[in-house]
Amino acid sequence: MTGTTLDDYTDRYARRVRGMTASEIRALFAVASRPEVVSLAGGAPYIAALPLDAVGEMLGRLAADHGHTTLQYGIGQGTLELRERICEVMSLSGIDVGCGASPEDVVVTVGGQQALDLVARLFLDPGDVVFAEGPTYVGALGVLQAAQAQVVHVPMDAEGLIPEALEAAIADAARAGRRVKFLYTIPTYQNPTGVTLTEERRERVLDICERAGLLVVEDDPYGQLGFAGDAPAPLRARRRDGVFYLSTFSKTFAPGLRVGWILAPHAVRDKLVIASEAQILCPSAYAQAAVTTYLSTMPWREQLKVYREVYRERRDAMLDALGDLMPEGTTWTEPDGGLFVWATLPDGLDSKAMMPRAIAARVAYVPGTGFYANGSGAGNIRLNFSFPPPERIREGVRRLAGVMEQEIAMRRVFGPVAGQAAGRRRGQAAADVPGPDLA
Amino acid sequence: MTGTTLDDYTDRYARRVRGMTASEIRALFAVASRPEVVSLAGGAPYIAALPLDAVGEMLGRLAADHGHTTLQYGIGQGTLELRERICEVMSLSGIDVGCGASPEDVVVTVGGQQALDLVARLFLDPGDVVFAEGPTYVGALGVLQAAQAQVVHVPMDAEGLIPEALEAAIADAARAGRRVKFLYTIPTYQNPTGVTLTEERRERVLDICERAGLLVVEDDPYGQLGFAGDAPAPLRARRRDGVFYLSTFSKTFAPGLRVGWILAPHAVRDKLVIASEAQILCPSAYAQAAVTTYLSTMPWREQLKVYREVYRERRDAMLDALGDLMPEGTTWTEPDGGLFVWATLPDGLDSKAMMPRAIAARVAYVPGTGFYANGSGAGNIRLNFSFPPPERIREGVRRLAGVMEQEIAMRRVFGPVAGQAAGRRRGQAAADVPGPDLA
Repeated sequence: MTGTTLDDYTDRYARRVRGMTASEIRALFAVASRPEVVSLAGGAPYIAALPLDAVGEMLGRLAADHGHTTLQYGIGQGTLELRERICEVMSLSGIDVGCGASPEDVVVTVGGQQALDLVARLFLDPGDVVFAEGPTYVGALGVLQAAQAQVVHVPMDAEGLIPEALEAAIADAARAGRRVKFLYTIPTYQNPTGVTLTEERRERVLDICERAGLLVVEDDPYGQLGFAGDAPAPLRARRRDGVFYLSTFSKTFAPGLRVGWILAPHAVRDKLVIASEAQILCPSAYAQAAVTTYLSTMPWREQLKVYREVYRERRDAMLDALGDLMPEGTTWTEPDGGLFVWATLPDGLDSKAMMPRAIAARVAYVPGTGFYANGSGAGNIRLNFSFPPPERIREGVRRLAGVMEQEIAMRRVFGPVAGQAAGRRRGQAAADVPGPDLA
Repeated sequence: MTGTTLDDYTDRYARRVRGMTASEIRALFAVASRPEVVSLAGGAPYIAALPLDAVGEMLGRLAADHGHTTLQYGIGQGTLELRERICEVMSLSGIDVGCGASPEDVVVTVGGQQALDLVARLFLDPGDVVFAEGPTYVGALGVLQAAQAQVVHVPMDAEGLIPEALEAAIADAARAGRRVKFLYTIPTYQNPTGVTLTEERRERVLDICERAGLLVVEDDPYGQLGFAGDAPAPLRARRRDGVFYLSTFSKTFAPGLRVGWILAPHAVRDKLVIASEAQILCPSAYAQAAVTTYLSTMPWREQLKVYREVYRERRDAMLDALGDLMPEGTTWTEPDGGLFVWATLPDGLDSKAMMPRAIAARVAYVPGTGFYANGSGAGNIRLNFSFPPPERIREGVRRLAGVMEQEIAMRRVFGPVAGQAAGRRRGQAAADVPGPDLA
């Protein structure tokens, strides 16, 4: 026997995918998409804010007039036209020729997800350590766990990633003899916290990584969705070397086209292209033409302002509702941009255990545990404000507050439920003692 | 130091991507796309045969009328609507409910490339052996080499994969103590040879794999592009278990949308979805809606006939031109469908070494070496007939024949060039001695 049975194979697959994100969130979204449920769970942009008729006309012409190229195969790196436009977009954030940004070093990807997956594919061997904020983007955990990397969370506060904690994590890894491949970070309007790494900390984090010879993978899907003026310049705008910059048009145009990109160090750009060709052959020529034409012929800077304005209003609605309605002991972040608020529940509440009751009360959120690789986050929830309109946000927060009040009352009468308490204790332990991931 | 410098990293990447297909073909296509060159090198469908105005109108409406879903995020597995249509398409080839095909077990992918990549991602550990026809699809080699698998080619003849050679390869691998993960095969109108596995051999190959406990990954992008009635039913139509069926709309509709699929054994379908989510989050909702609407509202069966008729005419033009113009000693396959003819050059000619002279004579092809993992194929070329019109095909073959005559004349005067001869010898050695890959 040179092969094995399908059962053997299934066991093998099970081993290979065990680490992957088990999309609790996917199951959750199925429930949350029922119309009677106020979903604060998603991360979807408010597509209705787009001029859909004009976009439709543009997309139709792309096939009718240019179908011989837009419906055909393209090249693995993506079209030069789109890569030039991408450089224009990045220059708004200060990533420009001055810091070595060039269309030559841009690789077009299937959304931001493939961007990170390609970097992981090139870098990671099983057992490698990757640093990431704690909490971090659930899809990044999916990529990193699929690559069999170990994610070590570096704690954050209201100013973002804590530089001292990063230094400590580097020292811990060195002591444990572990190989750290890169820092994955979302410095601006982070998912899930909405927190932005301050100007001063950006320099410190870069210095620390430079000293440690640690590459930085900067994920910046939200940077252009600020409500209070410009965000601090991206890390890539400050350093020519050692930073991979990933972004996407999913939040600034439309996620349904799946167009993202990597600005890569020149030395590895070609390897990323080869890796992408092995994965998807080439990105969609049609989707690329759609984004290129959108950026060339439509008022995309004004559309950014529209998105910002819609989201700012909804962020305000959410913060007001939280302030008015949340039970005592609840705290939350106050983001200056992006799509999310991160709330910390009153002591003793378990966000995952509470989910069924929240769904019964017709409100959905994402439990904090989804954003940690180590079981932390039971005391947290992520709330989205980009998709539901202001009055639905307030209604959702009202329902959620009701569920939380009931939970608190039940705890007073019956004490903590065994499972919940254990879950919470694990979460707290991991959060209180930085670095136990390497134990 | 817990990390390393960018130079160290670059060395590391180099190691990790060394196996990947170094897209000689990509560089080649850049040259071949110059208008004065007759390119027989590509694998592109003839998009101009589509009713582009009607397709454009449909695509425009998808955004204008349904943008709130088509431009939004979707789910990892792909929409149920599209998966239902895909089952309808597969039922034309005999893959239907009778053999357990269900929308539940379909996973929508970014073209056929991601389909194979996902299977590889679940199955393959570095050093695993995968069997594939010799020659095989260059993009499959890219996936398998990126997964650090070892491809062992199983020889073909005019009736497809040779069952006895497959048995021998299985026995060789067993003797060498190598772990074989699956057989990757394109049984119908194969790329690059155009050869179709006969009815009788399909059963034998399936029996052999079943006995050996070897999974089959059946890639079928061309099955519906037959010129002489229906092809033998796919392997998946004959076996409910143990066969992954991969296909794509790239050849039957349009590659620019990048929509393909896997029909997976139920036991692993969910794991493929999780792997795909880690890679791309979800396939494009817009591209999926485009294909769904195309299959629901447009005469796609008639369009298939149009493609078949165009390609049959071009295949005829190519076979006629080859018969009229090729130097003595040249042989070629006579495909009943698909996009390609595979030619064997007169003894002593080297298809790769001859390329610069062919380009100078304004004709392009793909050297056979691109379709082998082991250096074979120097005596072969792949010729595409789907894209250039008949008169260009004849002109291309005429130019190619001229280059070959010159090569033959030069060889008569000067003898074989050292580099060429060595390359050819390596290729022959690998082809003549089945199984040396495991040595």
